[in-house]
Amino acid sequence: MTDAANVPATENVPTRDRLLQAALVSFAERGFLGTTTRDIASAAGMSPAAVYVHYRSKEDLLFELSHGGHMDTIAEIDSADDAAQPPAVRLAAVMRAFSERHAMRHTSSRIVNYELHSLAPDHFTEISKLRRTITGRMRAIVDAGIETGDFDVADPQTTTNLLLSMGVDIARWYSDDGPLSPTELGDFYAKTALRVVGAVSPSPPNRPTPEN
Amino acid sequence: MTDAANVPATENVPTRDRLLQAALVSFAERGFLGTTTRDIASAAGMSPAAVYVHYRSKEDLLFELSHGGHMDTIAEIDSADDAAQPPAVRLAAVMRAFSERHAMRHTSSRIVNYELHSLAPDHFTEISKLRRTITGRMRAIVDAGIETGDFDVADPQTTTNLLLSMGVDIARWYSDDGPLSPTELGDFYAKTALRVVGAVSPSPPNRPTPEN
Repeated sequence: MTDAANVPATENVPTRDRLLQAALVSFAERGFLGTTTRDIASAAGMSPAAVYVHYRSKEDLLFELSHGGHMDTIAEIDSADDAAQPPAVRLAAVMRAFSERHAMRHTSSRIVNYELHSLAPDHFTEISKLRRTITGRMRAIVDAGIETGDFDVADPQTTTNLLLSMGVDIARWYSDDGPLSPTELGDFYAKTALRVVGAVSPSPPNRPTPEN
Repeated sequence: MTDAANVPATENVPTRDRLLQAALVSFAERGFLGTTTRDIASAAGMSPAAVYVHYRSKEDLLFELSHGGHMDTIAEIDSADDAAQPPAVRLAAVMRAFSERHAMRHTSSRIVNYELHSLAPDHFTEISKLRRTITGRMRAIVDAGIETGDFDVADPQTTTNLLLSMGVDIARWYSDDGPLSPTELGDFYAKTALRVVGAVSPSPPNRPTPEN
């Protein structure tokens, strides 16, 4: 499922969600700083006064979007990662999920990653904590691979940052009309991540060949 | 030399350059859409009317910044690249220059890369042409390595995009206070690029050892 391109007008969508979706569309079109509460209200088909019933400010909406986006990323990483697997399998799975997410949700990912500095200081602190959690998840896999000798990494933190950076930047350039689907791109990035860490090629699965 | 953090007030700086520098600072602080011509004039210590003597609009200033930034990138790639060298040497040199640039000039690189869609259609077309030139430079090196058998690349275009994406995203996260200097980061990215393309390790330089 990709980002919604416009705001569903149906009454089935709760008002808070409609406002979030309207904020996402408005921030994507005009940037956070170029968006007014009136723009968001108008995109949601509401009056500016009605917005304030649900959110104190457009910054509050940015924080909700950012918080939700980062929490979803952490959940997707945790769902993809199985610490019982060898580090190369873990890295490929997490990189695949992270990259696929940034391709599928490129609009919201762009806002979440590029409008960070428009957050209020306390909100920025909270989101930075979630970002450190994401970095920590990736770093743990890089460290595990160094520990087992499966990865050849000279600078674990810069390598971790680079792997996340590769995934994040997908949101900047990815187009729904491009040659690769999010899943195909995720596969490509998973393989590339193994190269980046100098992973020993995993042995092919042990299957009988016609000869034996 | 890193991006100037503020606008030099000296009369030695030509007015057009002062305005460009003021636009850079203003766009970095407020985003293009959140910046008014008055903001730029004020940052340059001029009246809004005086701005219009030199530039028709803030979009004109964005285009000048973007055009200059892309032309500089092409010049730096061409200065780093020596087509007579083996593909791995070329890739390392170009990746080093490209990454170092995005770390050193992170403020202007962010604007150049993230405000593209605020350009007027004819300006966007012109900048897109420069971006295709940059992509073409990198693609030529990837193709050269595939041709000689030095690189093991299954998807040359996605690999090219990924290499450029790694460099571009440096501008988003790089901090002048971080652990690596632009040069150190450039070296790290040069080595990583060789891994990304599955480059055959170049033989070590042929030097006599104490034993022979």
